[in-house]
Amino acid sequence: MSVIILGIDPGLANTGWGVIESVGSSHRCVAYGCVVTTAEEPLPQRLASVHREIEAVIKRYSPVACAVESVYFGANAKSAFATGQARGVALLALADAGLELGEYSPIQIKSTVVGTGSADKSQVAYMVRVLLALPDDPAPDHAADALAAAICHAHQRGSAAARTRLANAAAAEGRR
Amino acid sequence: MSVIILGIDPGLANTGWGVIESVGSSHRCVAYGCVVTTAEEPLPQRLASVHREIEAVIKRYSPVACAVESVYFGANAKSAFATGQARGVALLALADAGLELGEYSPIQIKSTVVGTGSADKSQVAYMVRVLLALPDDPAPDHAADALAAAICHAHQRGSAAARTRLANAAAAEGRR
Repeated sequence: MSVIILGIDPGLANTGWGVIESVGSSHRCVAYGCVVTTAEEPLPQRLASVHREIEAVIKRYSPVACAVESVYFGANAKSAFATGQARGVALLALADAGLELGEYSPIQIKSTVVGTGSADKSQVAYMVRVLLALPDDPAPDHAADALAAAICHAHQRGSAAARTRLANAAAAEGRR
Repeated sequence: MSVIILGIDPGLANTGWGVIESVGSSHRCVAYGCVVTTAEEPLPQRLASVHREIEAVIKRYSPVACAVESVYFGANAKSAFATGQARGVALLALADAGLELGEYSPIQIKSTVVGTGSADKSQVAYMVRVLLALPDDPAPDHAADALAAAICHAHQRGSAAARTRLANAAAAEGRR
């Protein structure tokens, strides 16, 4: 059974998003993009843009789940504060649509997609391209990171489903 | 002319809000409160609560403007990130209502309300009580801080209006 998963990499200036369709361990890129806002716009309007665009993406592609990075490991409180605001309005759009949320650490996402938690941005973009059979590395980085989060969530769902099947098989075996 | 001003002190666990009515340099407390969410609730639902309640406050009291602290000066990026998410959904409610936003540093707010930028929380709560002629210190701190932000914004508006009147009077004088 195929599932549609949305990944988001929130930021006040750039909120990357990516939608994938997963069947088992194979994934297809449905669409990706980036919501860009500029410091010239008033803050509430920038946040409204991020919210409106993510709401539109959810409406357009009807994902069943959404994945984001769990914690912000940025350099300072100021940028964490700005990123937090964008993340807040993006997650609000999920709440309104009743979407399941998966939060993953950058290490979990990189480990799943590249195979090592210490991968850099270009390695993530390259592996996203390979895994989704895209003609080019997805750009900007924010969109690549959003697609990577979506792939990570698809793997987690797949692993959880496999564990459930194994447990059910073991239980059935036990009942014989 | 009286104006209704909303102050917000956003936080993921506690978002304080306060509504005042100002006529010149005198202020009246219309209402105040605090949106409380707990770590047991999923994050998107917590953010949805903050957004819904602030939206309801705006609808109920029809403020013309909203004031918040400009920058988060907390201890670490983790708490700045959490606070940022709540601030994001609160400011989204302003954008939806087309409200004017005033951002003030903690020093500006304390200087306006207490007379010194180094005032502590209890001094802010006490002066908010005095300025709004409340029977008790407003509680919790988040609500007191929200009312303090609203008072600060009222003063800024008042000062700007006074400056405009002075400039107009000077210009009229010059035309004689």
